[in-house]
Amino acid sequence: MSLKLIAYTLGNLLICLAGTMLLPVGVAIYYQRAGETENNLTAFVISAIFTLIVGLALRFSIRARQEELGIREGFAVVALGWVTVALFGSLPYIFADVFHINGRSSWIEFSFCYFESMAGFTTTGATVLTEIEHLSHAVLFWRSLSHWLGGMGIVVLAVAILPMLGIGGMQLFRAEAPGPQTDRLTPRIAQTAKLLWGVYLLLSLLETVLLMFGGMSLFDALCHTFGTMATGGFSTKNHSIGHYNSVYIDMVISFFMFLAGTNFALHYRALRGDVKAYFRDTEFKFYCIVIAVSITLISWNTIRFQVDGDIPYDSMWTSLRYATFQVMSIITTTGYGTADFEQWPALSQFILVTLMFYGGCAGSTGGGMKQVRFLLLIKQSGAEIKRLLFPHAVLPIRVNDRVVPPEVMTNVLGFFFFFIGIFAIVTCIMATLGLDLVSAAGATIATMGNIGPGLGSVGPTDNYAHIHTAGKYVLSFCMLLGRLELYTVLILFSPNFWKR
Amino acid sequence: MSLKLIAYTLGNLLICLAGTMLLPVGVAIYYQRAGETENNLTAFVISAIFTLIVGLALRFSIRARQEELGIREGFAVVALGWVTVALFGSLPYIFADVFHINGRSSWIEFSFCYFESMAGFTTTGATVLTEIEHLSHAVLFWRSLSHWLGGMGIVVLAVAILPMLGIGGMQLFRAEAPGPQTDRLTPRIAQTAKLLWGVYLLLSLLETVLLMFGGMSLFDALCHTFGTMATGGFSTKNHSIGHYNSVYIDMVISFFMFLAGTNFALHYRALRGDVKAYFRDTEFKFYCIVIAVSITLISWNTIRFQVDGDIPYDSMWTSLRYATFQVMSIITTTGYGTADFEQWPALSQFILVTLMFYGGCAGSTGGGMKQVRFLLLIKQSGAEIKRLLFPHAVLPIRVNDRVVPPEVMTNVLGFFFFFIGIFAIVTCIMATLGLDLVSAAGATIATMGNIGPGLGSVGPTDNYAHIHTAGKYVLSFCMLLGRLELYTVLILFSPNFWKR
Repeated sequence: MSLKLIAYTLGNLLICLAGTMLLPVGVAIYYQRAGETENNLTAFVISAIFTLIVGLALRFSIRARQEELGIREGFAVVALGWVTVALFGSLPYIFADVFHINGRSSWIEFSFCYFESMAGFTTTGATVLTEIEHLSHAVLFWRSLSHWLGGMGIVVLAVAILPMLGIGGMQLFRAEAPGPQTDRLTPRIAQTAKLLWGVYLLLSLLETVLLMFGGMSLFDALCHTFGTMATGGFSTKNHSIGHYNSVYIDMVISFFMFLAGTNFALHYRALRGDVKAYFRDTEFKFYCIVIAVSITLISWNTIRFQVDGDIPYDSMWTSLRYATFQVMSIITTTGYGTADFEQWPALSQFILVTLMFYGGCAGSTGGGMKQVRFLLLIKQSGAEIKRLLFPHAVLPIRVNDRVVPPEVMTNVLGFFFFFIGIFAIVTCIMATLGLDLVSAAGATIATMGNIGPGLGSVGPTDNYAHIHTAGKYVLSFCMLLGRLELYTVLILFSPNFWKR
Repeated sequence: MSLKLIAYTLGNLLICLAGTMLLPVGVAIYYQRAGETENNLTAFVISAIFTLIVGLALRFSIRARQEELGIREGFAVVALGWVTVALFGSLPYIFADVFHINGRSSWIEFSFCYFESMAGFTTTGATVLTEIEHLSHAVLFWRSLSHWLGGMGIVVLAVAILPMLGIGGMQLFRAEAPGPQTDRLTPRIAQTAKLLWGVYLLLSLLETVLLMFGGMSLFDALCHTFGTMATGGFSTKNHSIGHYNSVYIDMVISFFMFLAGTNFALHYRALRGDVKAYFRDTEFKFYCIVIAVSITLISWNTIRFQVDGDIPYDSMWTSLRYATFQVMSIITTTGYGTADFEQWPALSQFILVTLMFYGGCAGSTGGGMKQVRFLLLIKQSGAEIKRLLFPHAVLPIRVNDRVVPPEVMTNVLGFFFFFIGIFAIVTCIMATLGLDLVSAAGATIATMGNIGPGLGSVGPTDNYAHIHTAGKYVLSFCMLLGRLELYTVLILFSPNFWKR
């Protein structure tokens, strides 16, 4: 384990981060000229300079030999990288004093800044802001940009890095990453990253243009695209996408959330001309079925339901519209809202909660447990029943016409147990910190699954500001855990990891 | 698959059931002489005769060859046997017209009778009765006796039969059943059953005597012993064990719930002089740790908590007393109550909900997922983290110093996924049938885990009477599923099962 190499890589990462901070600097200058007085220009300049200095210090003070990152260093860089970026990414919130609460500055309320930043870079989209629309454009832009940057990281991580690190089930996709099939890790990842970022950028451009057609300003279209493609969920409006109340915008965002929740390796192949790749992919088909069933059930369940004598959705089409958007938003773990689903009947609510656990496809920017894991678990469960009848039969599990090795199966099953186990433990902790049962469970799954809005006091119309300071750190950690597929973070707590 | 052999065995079972119905007949006669007017004597006599006739008809009309039960027949007899017994066991409720609701007789409200009977024989203890104390002694006795009989079935099933059928994780205990180690199934099971029933009877006698010391009448002592040893939970009092408000009775019942939640093979060995067997058993140690941690946390969490300005538990001892009873009651899936835990703080509630999933030890009368499965899942999860670091290492999982074969591991992991999956699906169904989210989830886990009281509208101070008729059948099915370790019931729905 080369700690120097890790520090060196983190230094490089911070230098890049400092570079991206120039974008909100540009936004601040633009809106300063347009007459915005509270534009937070200074805050972003200071943050960028500070981040750059630390980055350069790490990169050049440590003399790392030119060596390849090994598996251990890979784990450490991924997990520590995300924490470091979230930490430095919270600087603009501090310097802009976004969380000036009860007369105390954002330095003191650091947990707010860190939570918001982590929710950005992990593409969770849970917010501790009570009022969004009075923020400066630069800050709003930075929130959304942090999603998009996090999404860039996740696309590469999920398609190229995690499969090679052997994270439960992801190994199955090892051969599917675009780019050269070489044994050397670094050049391969670099090449794959470039190809995937091309896809990511292209889809982002397309969505921005389509949203502008729907009447959004360039600024809002960009911010909402960032939130969509990264399956993040930060909006520039207090009422999220519900603000626009436009069927067209709902449809565009639903469609791009759907794409963002799909394996990016498939998009890459489709753009290369192999559109049928989607329909050869077992996980993608499963994902479509889960979506179709959920939308049908919720549309049926919410049609003509009553709230206090009101009938909010008086036709099938209205039900279908809101059901489609909400299912897409939750299954892809984006978290945008056009409806307060806590008002919906219990069945619809429960389906959404189940989808929170499901999450997007492997290799997408979506969080949760991933479709392919559920697919494998369902197949495995069926096989176990067969095994009772034929104890000596060999019953291989297949995905995409390939047999899933048994050690991948136990790894996936282990992942499922870890996910449920951590969910239970964190819910306990949140309950201890004063949340009621539904809110505690809702906050936990909404952060572990990188969704954003939960249930109860952290529901779609609420926020996380009221949560105990310790709770904010615990939930930030949950976002990291969920985003990095648990194992990548948990392995750092294993004594074996640090042994030579 | 020999359907004749199955019918023949079910016939035998019904003849035995008819015999046990003579016990409430005796109770009815006794209380008739003591002056009870509504003693339901006729109802029990008719039920016994009817059950006997059907049993004899099945046994003698079908000419089964003298053959051994195979694995398939074993599964069918176990699952269909429980359904049949619950069906005929509901006759007394029908004939005694226990559920005469809104002017409609118990024949029409059959779902109530079937639910109550299934809750008895599966040792769940969920009730659809709103008022218990006005029932005749014979009916109360039959309710509790159905627990005890169900418990007898479960002890043999869990220690001797399921391990041989290869149900997830239970195979580990294959060698631990007392009795001869022969290859022939039937004589071995018969011999093991006799030894285990000896233990069961002995513990039951002991508890009855101890409860009578505490001031209970013989009748109440017997009924509560039946409910304890089977980890059932039916009481003869509206306020369950809380009725007595006696520290002594709380302690006695807590202790026997603890014993009933322990592997009966260990009790057998202890009675043969090998008391150290308990402390050599990994699962038993794990069970003790889980209990100790839960009691500590809940005692700490409930001390001096406030409800509407009241402080119900004003000292550590009071907290400890109620926490101990409730933890024992829930972890063993008994469901007796001395406190309304829905008033407790969120953390305590959540711990109890988690324990509902845990359940008792394998080979006990307790339900839930069983301690040993969690133990295996925890060990497996730890191994998966190690495997990321050492991809080519062999990492065996050990329990009781023996290596757990990989196919047992996948079976246990599959069981966990099945349990959570079925829990989610049934919660959806219950939500569709009109329950709110918490009550739907609470009712599902309380029946699947064979506990009894759930949360929300089926909480410890409520009952299941208000649930939709279809919901009563769904929950009855859940009790069966949970009681027979899922696989035993699910296998009957596999097309392969019925193929020759």
